Amino acid sequence: MSGKRAMTNVVFSNDFDKAMAAFIIANGAASAGYDVTLFFTFWGINILRKSDPVTAKKNLIEKMFGIMMPKGPDRLTLSKMNMGGMGLAMIKGIMKHKNVMPLPALIAQAKQSGVRLIVCTMSMDLMGIKKEELIDGVEEGGVAMYVDRMSRSSANLFI
Amino acid sequence: MSGKRAMTNVVFSNDFDKAMAAFIIANGAASAGYDVTLFFTFWGINILRKSDPVTAKKNLIEKMFGIMMPKGPDRLTLSKMNMGGMGLAMIKGIMKHKNVMPLPALIAQAKQSGVRLIVCTMSMDLMGIKKEELIDGVEEGGVAMYVDRMSRSSANLFI
Amino acid sequence: MSGKRAMTNVVFSNDFDKAMAAFIIANGAASAGYDVTLFFTFWGINILRKSDPVTAKKNLIEKMFGIMMPKGPDRLTLSKMNMGGMGLAMIKGIMKHKNVMPLPALIAQAKQSGVRLIVCTMSMDLMGIKKEELIDGVEEGGVAMYVDRMSRSSANLFI
Repeated sequence: MSGKRAMTNVVFSNDFDKAMAAFIIANGAASAGYDVTLFFTFWGINILRKSDPVTAKKNLIEKMFGIMMPKGPDRLTLSKMNMGGMGLAMIKGIMKHKNVMPLPALIAQAKQSGVRLIVCTMSMDLMGIKKEELIDGVEEGGVAMYVDRMSRSSANLFI
Repeated sequence: MSGKRAMTNVVFSNDFDKAMAAFIIANGAASAGYDVTLFFTFWGINILRKSDPVTAKKNLIEKMFGIMMPKGPDRLTLSKMNMGGMGLAMIKGIMKHKNVMPLPALIAQAKQSGVRLIVCTMSMDLMGIKKEELIDGVEEGGVAMYVDRMSRSSANLFI
Repeated sequence: MSGKRAMTNVVFSNDFDKAMAAFIIANGAASAGYDVTLFFTFWGINILRKSDPVTAKKNLIEKMFGIMMPKGPDRLTLSKMNMGGMGLAMIKGIMKHKNVMPLPALIAQAKQSGVRLIVCTMSMDLMGIKKEELIDGVEEGGVAMYVDRMSRSSANLFI
């Protein structure tokens, strides 16, 4: 049955601005009583990587991908006007000035609010990202788990 | 309760092509009897800027952002194949030739059809965009207002 | 009436990674019993182009667009880290190694599962893509057809 008060959003992108939007919407929906699931797939899984080095057994290709992709919320870049980091630094400066919660705090708040963070197993496999490289509290799941959460949700976004 | 005939779409992007899609879908849904809300956030708020100069009190950073971001529907660029404006000019030429309604007319039609245009207050604050820089008829609102509209809608997109 | 077990997704992008996501989700939902529609608009219509040359009557602008846009699933590029095709080649190599179904097979599976593939007539017209350039089994439709499918669906994404 289609649920009344659940929201399931696919987080495909690892752009800083889209990650902000994903967590602001998730936290807003959670605080309004929604049962929220974020399903991280493709580039989106990088948002949940730990920023400190993790030793995981990897082959060469996996190591290369691991190096080229951003490690966690503080390494993401803007989808537009990043300008080698200058646009991003400006945005982060304004966020601090205006007391907008930074991305790591939004993620922590989501976890505290019970937002489920599911990471796509196929994407982890493709990009060689191991469970121990991800922050605590995330679950692994495939497309069947996504469809199950989606089928119980009245709102579904692809971010 | 989840509504039957309402649609709420987040407009995150200010790409010309995505803005076209957002308004074509909104107008199509409105003409089919839907109660449509577009919630403009992050770059998307630029779609609703007036193209003529507006004097608003701004600090240096806000002025810089204001200059770097597109001012209204006629300044947007394509997400792909923009080619310094050549791809965009080609698309606009074909649109005229094929009698596809231009973006400013689609926006005017949306307003006439009662599509609600809500601009994210946090994004305005972050990018230093003031109410007087936006076209008439837009409302301001935060994530709580978005969640309220979303919760009454049977269809929700993130564009 | 809003349907219980239907999903309608707009496929706007022709990025390889987003096309993969679109078909994996569509096939996952179809195998869970959903009545799935994919509505291809703007760049997305390129995903359904035949890769072999098709002689269609076109004017100069249409010919130019036809040449510049990718012809089918094997010509798409990554939204990120494409690196002149190297990132894409790496991803495809890993997909093969991990036995992830390639995009053309995902499209074939979608058709076999009864996923409806609707191509936006306005986008075909704008970009000069003719019906004979598209793979067999696709339907043509406008925004009214999209809204009709959307109104019967409990889940709607914009990809």
